[in-house]
Amino acid sequence: MHPLNKVDDAAWPSLLTVGCANFLSVQRDKRATLEKLLTVVRDAARQGCDLVVFPELALNSWGECADCAARSRPCDWHLADAELAHGPTSDAVARVARELDIHVIYGFEEQDEDDASVLYNAAAIVTPDGLLGTYRKVHLGIPLETNRFTPGDAIPVFETRLGPIGISICYDFYNNPELARILCLKGARLLVNPTGRGDLPRAEQNLRHMTLVRAQENLVYAASANRVGVTGDATWSGGSIIGGPAFPGFGKVLAQAGRGEELIVTTLNFEQLAAWYDWLPWREWRLGAQLPATRLIAEEYAAIVAKAER
Amino acid sequence: MHPLNKVDDAAWPSLLTVGCANFLSVQRDKRATLEKLLTVVRDAARQGCDLVVFPELALNSWGECADCAARSRPCDWHLADAELAHGPTSDAVARVARELDIHVIYGFEEQDEDDASVLYNAAAIVTPDGLLGTYRKVHLGIPLETNRFTPGDAIPVFETRLGPIGISICYDFYNNPELARILCLKGARLLVNPTGRGDLPRAEQNLRHMTLVRAQENLVYAASANRVGVTGDATWSGGSIIGGPAFPGFGKVLAQAGRGEELIVTTLNFEQLAAWYDWLPWREWRLGAQLPATRLIAEEYAAIVAKAER
Repeated sequence: MHPLNKVDDAAWPSLLTVGCANFLSVQRDKRATLEKLLTVVRDAARQGCDLVVFPELALNSWGECADCAARSRPCDWHLADAELAHGPTSDAVARVARELDIHVIYGFEEQDEDDASVLYNAAAIVTPDGLLGTYRKVHLGIPLETNRFTPGDAIPVFETRLGPIGISICYDFYNNPELARILCLKGARLLVNPTGRGDLPRAEQNLRHMTLVRAQENLVYAASANRVGVTGDATWSGGSIIGGPAFPGFGKVLAQAGRGEELIVTTLNFEQLAAWYDWLPWREWRLGAQLPATRLIAEEYAAIVAKAER
Repeated sequence: MHPLNKVDDAAWPSLLTVGCANFLSVQRDKRATLEKLLTVVRDAARQGCDLVVFPELALNSWGECADCAARSRPCDWHLADAELAHGPTSDAVARVARELDIHVIYGFEEQDEDDASVLYNAAAIVTPDGLLGTYRKVHLGIPLETNRFTPGDAIPVFETRLGPIGISICYDFYNNPELARILCLKGARLLVNPTGRGDLPRAEQNLRHMTLVRAQENLVYAASANRVGVTGDATWSGGSIIGGPAFPGFGKVLAQAGRGEELIVTTLNFEQLAAWYDWLPWREWRLGAQLPATRLIAEEYAAIVAKAER
């Protein structure tokens, strides 16, 4: 078997218990938000979670900032509210993660280590061994997010003892399917989507469809953690969801939240997921017999870039 | 507005009536199948369709062929059953298309114009002016389809007076989201999926999710036409579906078939679709302010290819 086809490597647990939090930040109070977040982490650990996922920017405040908008760059308040990846928050989360032997992924405003004026819409992945890294949202909403944030420039797979995990944030995940696909071509077996999904018509249905399709098209599991409640002008639709293929059937909801604050928990079965690969070893194909298709796709993207640059 | 953001160009109709046929070929009888197909085309025209879509390999027979499998290449029967793109079938369809002023897309076994031993799993697009071209399935099921077919090597957008249309066939559409994405980055405003979807658990739900997600992630409409009934060992799930974003809401089913032979018809509103672009001009972003993301994606694919080639 092609090494990238493995989703049930013996080094990784074949059963993985995952939680997703429908979560509401305490607006403009990071300290209180962190306390709330750690309470949910403890609750997740009590329910047997190996991993718990929080929404986009869960640690921080949401929304347009008049001061950031006026300058088209982060205002002093937001610069002070952001943190380095290795910061007091990741230290606090890492202490609890070590104590409870749990992995935690949460969205936050990350300050660049070399340029303090640069912020990212990021998600941290903290393991019992400490901070593993951050994913920085590549596709920002314009202009709401570009006033404050700089886009990320990497699509990393995080190698954990739970197996390889890929993170995409919100719009990255929904409207830019290449990111999830690249993460999975690079070996991810779980996609995590920290999101802030607004309450447009059919939002709950769409979050379910998107999460199940990203899982099915890449033959991985997927977990979306959404914000809830009202923040200024924004209403969040909740509906955090975990699901994936359930051989021999297509995408199945394993857990889904309602509209209020809630922790959903389910157990992923990677032996069952591997059964799909026996029938449809898509990564082996795409990197082997179907490599011409992958090459064609690479060429098409290069041509699109070249045309746009002209 | 960036020219690629246009989905409501004045040269194209803002309302488009589209039909999808839940269709069963007459096994090993192309002549009878063509008669059936033309009857559905006439029915679609009577119902006001500008375009009618048929499933994957609608014209031909489905399934594993012992003779093709034994040779790992097309058997004599299959070679004789296939046709050139410009062949008696496309001529017959073009006559009806001209008479009724309708566009027709149907799956068929296409013979290569330069090498008669090469067959493609293709879809023809026929306009009232005649055959416009064929799309050849890029990702074939292995080994079922590779015994007989050669993969396609192009991802064309078909410029029609109904607007630019992209075609992906079945597994291309479901498990290889780059194809639909590339078609839409190249300007398609309608995705067509001639499919032969088997009756796995949650097949009808999955076809709905996949069709609505391809439409929503690319802000286009999408139409999937599926086979029905039983062919040898295969049972088809039907459920042909047409849908897309319905501003300000997410993906909406506009028409969906059951499990029997049926023609579904709906009218697509491209003015309504354009309202999504006012809020989320993703193609303008991806080819402008977010060009670094597109460049990153191109580089990631190039790196994946280079690694696989080593």
